[in-house]
Amino acid sequence: MSSETVVPGQVLLADEQDELAGVRARFQVPDPVVYLDGNSLGMLPTAVLPAVTDLVTRQWGQDLITSWNVHGWWQLPARVGNRIGRLIGAADGQVICGDSTSVQLFQALTAACRMRPGRSVILTDGGGFPTDQYLADAVAGLLGLRVRRLHPSELAGQLDDDVAVVSFSQVDYRTGELFDLATVTEQVHRSGALMLWDLCHSAGALPVALDEVRADFAVGCSYKYLNGGPGAPGYLYIAQRHLAAAELPLTGWHGHRSPFELQQRYVPADTIERARIGTPPVLSMAALEAALSVFDEVSLAAIRRKSLALTDLVIAFAQDRLADFGVTVVTPIEHARRGSQVSLRMPAAYEVCQALIERGVIGDFRAPDLLRLGFTPLYLRYADVYRALGELESVLADGSHTDGRYAQRAAVT
Amino acid sequence: MSSETVVPGQVLLADEQDELAGVRARFQVPDPVVYLDGNSLGMLPTAVLPAVTDLVTRQWGQDLITSWNVHGWWQLPARVGNRIGRLIGAADGQVICGDSTSVQLFQALTAACRMRPGRSVILTDGGGFPTDQYLADAVAGLLGLRVRRLHPSELAGQLDDDVAVVSFSQVDYRTGELFDLATVTEQVHRSGALMLWDLCHSAGALPVALDEVRADFAVGCSYKYLNGGPGAPGYLYIAQRHLAAAELPLTGWHGHRSPFELQQRYVPADTIERARIGTPPVLSMAALEAALSVFDEVSLAAIRRKSLALTDLVIAFAQDRLADFGVTVVTPIEHARRGSQVSLRMPAAYEVCQALIERGVIGDFRAPDLLRLGFTPLYLRYADVYRALGELESVLADGSHTDGRYAQRAAVT
Repeated sequence: MSSETVVPGQVLLADEQDELAGVRARFQVPDPVVYLDGNSLGMLPTAVLPAVTDLVTRQWGQDLITSWNVHGWWQLPARVGNRIGRLIGAADGQVICGDSTSVQLFQALTAACRMRPGRSVILTDGGGFPTDQYLADAVAGLLGLRVRRLHPSELAGQLDDDVAVVSFSQVDYRTGELFDLATVTEQVHRSGALMLWDLCHSAGALPVALDEVRADFAVGCSYKYLNGGPGAPGYLYIAQRHLAAAELPLTGWHGHRSPFELQQRYVPADTIERARIGTPPVLSMAALEAALSVFDEVSLAAIRRKSLALTDLVIAFAQDRLADFGVTVVTPIEHARRGSQVSLRMPAAYEVCQALIERGVIGDFRAPDLLRLGFTPLYLRYADVYRALGELESVLADGSHTDGRYAQRAAVT
Repeated sequence: MSSETVVPGQVLLADEQDELAGVRARFQVPDPVVYLDGNSLGMLPTAVLPAVTDLVTRQWGQDLITSWNVHGWWQLPARVGNRIGRLIGAADGQVICGDSTSVQLFQALTAACRMRPGRSVILTDGGGFPTDQYLADAVAGLLGLRVRRLHPSELAGQLDDDVAVVSFSQVDYRTGELFDLATVTEQVHRSGALMLWDLCHSAGALPVALDEVRADFAVGCSYKYLNGGPGAPGYLYIAQRHLAAAELPLTGWHGHRSPFELQQRYVPADTIERARIGTPPVLSMAALEAALSVFDEVSLAAIRRKSLALTDLVIAFAQDRLADFGVTVVTPIEHARRGSQVSLRMPAAYEVCQALIERGVIGDFRAPDLLRLGFTPLYLRYADVYRALGELESVLADGSHTDGRYAQRAAVT
């Protein structure tokens, strides 16, 4: 941080009174960075390195193949799945961990469509993350269905008995808009369709109540607010009442009812184990398991309170101090419609993002004109966020970010 | 090791003259185990822990999201893919690393079948590893095709113009039989079908010449003879001449021609990058990349020479000294038909396997009556193998393994 932003007393007080203040010590915090990209890749929990070292040197290195039994590698996908389940409102036995979100979308969409024979439409958000749309197109192509694109806010009146599955992200990855899990799920069920939620941008950032709203399927990744590390495995939720009927397309041997009998014909497990595919990435999954221990001590309600307070701070600052630079707040102001990010529309957003990175404020850019800032209450302090806003104001006031020094490059979600 | 097996001078001499003797130091060798299960999970290369530690603490922990660019995470799947390619006879640009073998089988089978419209049969080995058969059934179900099961040795005269794809493992996982890559591929091509090879039990254990034999597709895992660690990612080979036509079903955003433009419609990359799906398991893939460095110093020809010498030793011992205990050699005697394992049929094979494990000899059991021993020339010494055979003879002579002390349990491939 280069500037000398004066942090107001009430911001300092918020840190003093922060019920989550102690959790920051459970992360390796790269000083002096203010990291507002935890919605892309969460920071490193300190529990990860010891777990990974043990996994590599003792479990793999010493105990070798026996570790599948003695260190419970075989149970990892369901064990970690249950742990994720507790963060998304799913009782045990409904979440399996593994593969990528894209693969899990393929699994969930195919199984859901097969449960609604005779219906020919997959409905998805045309502004949703691309992979959700690509997989909807892929599944529709394979099953002879078609895809309709619709924003979740336009759902009312658009559902008929030809829609098999509705697939939405709970939080819009660009705008940070939060959609109401209960209302949407109920609308979809009234039409007889099944509801698939993508939780990539909500799990770990706010309470999610899958069982309570009677969601049918859900998928997500674990490297954003769950802090599982780069490319940490995804997960798939199948509501208990659908387990017996969910015919998943990727019939790898780990999902077999009796995998060690090595039978010639696939018979899926009766349980969520049927959602396993091939041998899981044990190293990545063990890192995730250790990372999730951070959540043992905290409640999602507390995370949500602080998330809203942090984003309130950002929105107020943007409205008060940045409007003159052409900055507008894209993320909804209402708490009930806001995820744990704030997206700011501004001229030269890409260059602003780069200038901020040089000053130690890591956010990201979404074409064509969004600066996207993510807020992980587990490790962010109010004062740091305030200083980051000071840097943003300073960059905009200075104006030198538009002098052509930043050639536009690729970024990673 | 408990017994006092006298190792013959010629076996000790073989170790003295072993051109690969120095490579053993590049592994963490758990003493005093003799590990004959490298065909299930390879041992830990010493290069892995430093690589993983750097990945976790510096790349993830310190450099966070910027690592996708500054540490080349984005390039990992193709970079590691090329490295695997060198071990399976594939020129650069034809192998992508990622996901599991099961997922890659789904990708390859679907793409291959789509390239042979009008043909309705997937032909696979009815004795092949279950996941290969399950995925063949799954793809056939989705595309409206059917599966025929046939042993590779029975292929002659069985191919007609209704076969779209033939999918075989290069080495039979139970018997260790090696099938001829060139002959089978040529037979298949003469019928107009495409050839998919599963290299799980051959890659890293013997020279594989995919380009030379004009194979079409290949898949494999990296945790067996490639020593990538538990659940290390799989890979997919697509011959250069098929890249433009290979329509892969799992259209994750990483495979898009312009992934960072976040477009609404999927357009696959022109290159092998089209075989990417979602965000790869960076941690597991970085471990694999470090593990593969072991192969930089050795030739696959040298590995094959030692592999044959080790398995010759085992076969000769079994024939000379174990036949009286009812042990027969299932693996072919001819070098050209032998992988890097020896499977021995015997009474009470499960109990023998357990008794050997108690004596520090790790092999595995395949129902109903096979003791399966895998040989990784990179870290196995002739004398250790001889001592393991002594233990086997001692177990069989002692006979107490059949007294009911070993309840039959599950094992992992």
